[in-house]
Parts: sequence; C-alpha cells; structure tokens
Amino acid sequence: MIQLYFSPGACSFVPHALLEESGLVYEPIMVKLHKGEQNAEPFKALNPRGQVPVLVQDGVALNQIVALCLHIDALCPERGFLPRDPIARTQALSNLAWMNNTVHPTFTHVFMPQKFHDDTQVQGAIREFAVVQFGHYLDDLQQMVAHEQSRGQPWLSGDRWGPLDAYALTLTRWGSIAGHDPQQRPVLWTHVQQVAEQPGVARTIERERLNLNMYRGS
Amino acid sequence: MIQLYFSPGACSFVPHALLEESGLVYEPIMVKLHKGEQNAEPFKALNPRGQVPVLVQDGVALNQIVALCLHIDALCPERGFLPRDPIARTQALSNLAWMNNTVHPTFTHVFMPQKFHDDTQVQGAIREFAVVQFGHYLDDLQQMVAHEQSRGQPWLSGDRWGPLDAYALTLTRWGSIAGHDPQQRPVLWTHVQQVAEQPGVARTIERERLNLNMYRGS
Repeated sequence: MIQLYFSPGACSFVPHALLEESGLVYEPIMVKLHKGEQNAEPFKALNPRGQVPVLVQDGVALNQIVALCLHIDALCPERGFLPRDPIARTQALSNLAWMNNTVHPTFTHVFMPQKFHDDTQVQGAIREFAVVQFGHYLDDLQQMVAHEQSRGQPWLSGDRWGPLDAYALTLTRWGSIAGHDPQQRPVLWTHVQQVAEQPGVARTIERERLNLNMYRGS
Repeated sequence: MIQLYFSPGACSFVPHALLEESGLVYEPIMVKLHKGEQNAEPFKALNPRGQVPVLVQDGVALNQIVALCLHIDALCPERGFLPRDPIARTQALSNLAWMNNTVHPTFTHVFMPQKFHDDTQVQGAIREFAVVQFGHYLDDLQQMVAHEQSRGQPWLSGDRWGPLDAYALTLTRWGSIAGHDPQQRPVLWTHVQQVAEQPGVARTIERERLNLNMYRGS
C-alpha cells in the first residue's frame, strides 16, 4: 500500500498528479501547511525536515521530488512517465533536476526569504531580486516548451505528459503568485492549460482545489 | 565515445570520480573557471548555462549531477554505484537530490552571493547567513554517515562507494573553504578521507590537484 502526503499547491503536486494518472492504488493524505502540520507529529516522524511530499511504501517514508518521480516511473514503466531511450531519459532528468535545484529554490527565496536571512530588510531585498530571476527562469521554461514543440513533441519529456509537465505547471502557478502574469508567456501558459486538462492532472487540481492563475496585478 | 568536461574542485568531481572508477573509456576535459572558459565558446555551445559538468556521449551534451550519476550507473549497472533494490535506491536518490538541491545551493550563496543580489552589502549578509546554514548541513551529512555505519554500512549508498560518498567529499571540502574546520566533524572527516583513498577517487583528486582540507582558521 502506498500513501502520498501532499499539501495543496506545493511541489507535492508533481508526484500527486503522477500517482493519480498511474492507475496505482494509493491513499492521498493532506498536510495542512497553514496549520503547521508539517512541523508536528505524526508528519515530522515521516520527514524530520518537515517537507512534503512524502511517499510511504511498505512502511518506509521516501521523499524528494526527483527521487519520487523516478520511483513512480519504476512502479509503472509501461506508463512512460519518463523516456526509456538512455540519452533522452538523461536529458529529461537533467531538465527535471534543473527545475528542482534552480527554479524551485528561486521561488523559495520569494516565498520564504526567512530561510536565507533573519533580518527582514535583507529578506525583502532577497525576495525582490528572486522575483526578477524567477521571470528569467519562466522564460527558459517557455523556451523548453517551444523547443519540444518545434520537434513535434507536445510534451516536455516524451510522447505523453510526465513529471516535467506537471512541474512546469506548478512553477508557472508559483510564478503567478510571485507577480508574473502567466498570459505574458503565451506558449508556456497554453502548454500548462493543456497539461491541466489531462485526466490525472485535472483530478489532482480538483482535490487540491487549485486556481492555476493566482496573478492579481503587479 | 564519452567526454567529461570538469573543473577542478567543482561538483563535476562527482561524475568525474564515478567515470574514473567505472572502467568506461572516456576523455576528461578541463574547463578553467578562473579563465572564464565556462562562459566562452566552445564550452558555451555545450551548456548555455555555463556550468560544469557536461558529459558528451555520441555528440549529445548532457548535464546536471543527478542526471549524470543515473546515466553513468545505467552504463555500468554491474558496478553498483546505486542500490538495485527499489526502496533502497529511492532512499539513496532522495539523499543525492537533497545534497544537490539544498546543501550545494547553500554553498553557492557563500561562494557566489552575487547570484542572489547585486548589492554588495546584501551579498555579504547572504554569505554570512549561508556559512552558518552550511555548518548545519555538514552536521546532517555527518549524521547520515553515522546512521549508515550504525547499520553496518561503510558507504552512503550501498556495499561500495558511490555518488553520495563522492558528493559528501566535495561538500565537506567546500565546507572547509567556507570556514568549517573538517576536523570538528570527525565522523564525516574520517569517512571523506576513506572515500579519498578509493582508487578511482584518488586518481580524480590527483588529476584535479585537490587539497581536501582548505580550512585556514576562522
């Protein structure tokens, strides 16, 4: 039996959408970040770092987006969440790792600048700089989508949607929270809306009650 | 034919050591960061982001530490760089992803704070905070080593040394540059020295001309 601990709108959206699409039997369990449940028992026993997602399988708690995407891919290889061809697979994993170690942490600077300094003025400066930087990364994401489309590939990592597409959706939504109007990047925005229409993704959006576009004007 | 573009002491040490140990035929190519070669042709054509490592296989340029570790593991599965058991493998990849998306970027705040703000005073504040945070992560790394040893495992990801051990060496060395005396964490430091003695790692250290302990007093 598999459980997935997720929080609405967090990066746990990626494995959540993959599991929902996979056909695997699993139990989704919501962790309410606004109530601090990630820093309290019983969740803290599963992940002392207090971060979602956590996937529990056979009583073992597993975490980290990239590791969970590979884990879910290995549970249902026939689904094709990641390419099988060795070179194409590494290219996809390279882009996934970049989203995870570069784009994602830049949003952390916007959303939780207190992780990078305890002075509120420095925090404000860090946030402001990161908002601009996040825009550059959204440009890169849009270019990634355009590049795949120019090769006749509708998705970011193969013939069917996969973790890269789900992560692009999450990062674009975070961008809208950071003050980047998604409609200013129409290729990326159209792609994200197509991802959102895929059955597994749509069910995940519904369970997490997500509004894809959180932009409220700059 | 495989080429690996590396820079001495950079995170490219991880795939460099794996390739050196693997027995695979490859050509190591040094990129001199202090001469800005990462931001000039011909390297820039391989990775527009100007970052090492880049692994070129059959003319295709691949990057990102986590993706390259998986790629090299797939090229020589018999070497056991990563566990084969699905749960143990995901646990190892989870720790690898954490090193890559949390510990590694914290050192970037120390070494290149200009990536996070253009004001030099803010940069100084960011660096100072990150140095302390990096110490906490070195504590976590040491705990990871101690945990494996308490289970009778000498290495961080299985029966033989692998990417986690090479990354732990790199991060500990970076810690010594950031002002953390490695001898203050004897379990981690002893482990790193044992990793350094492994033939493939030792040859990589020699080619990169690395001094493991860069600590010069606080």
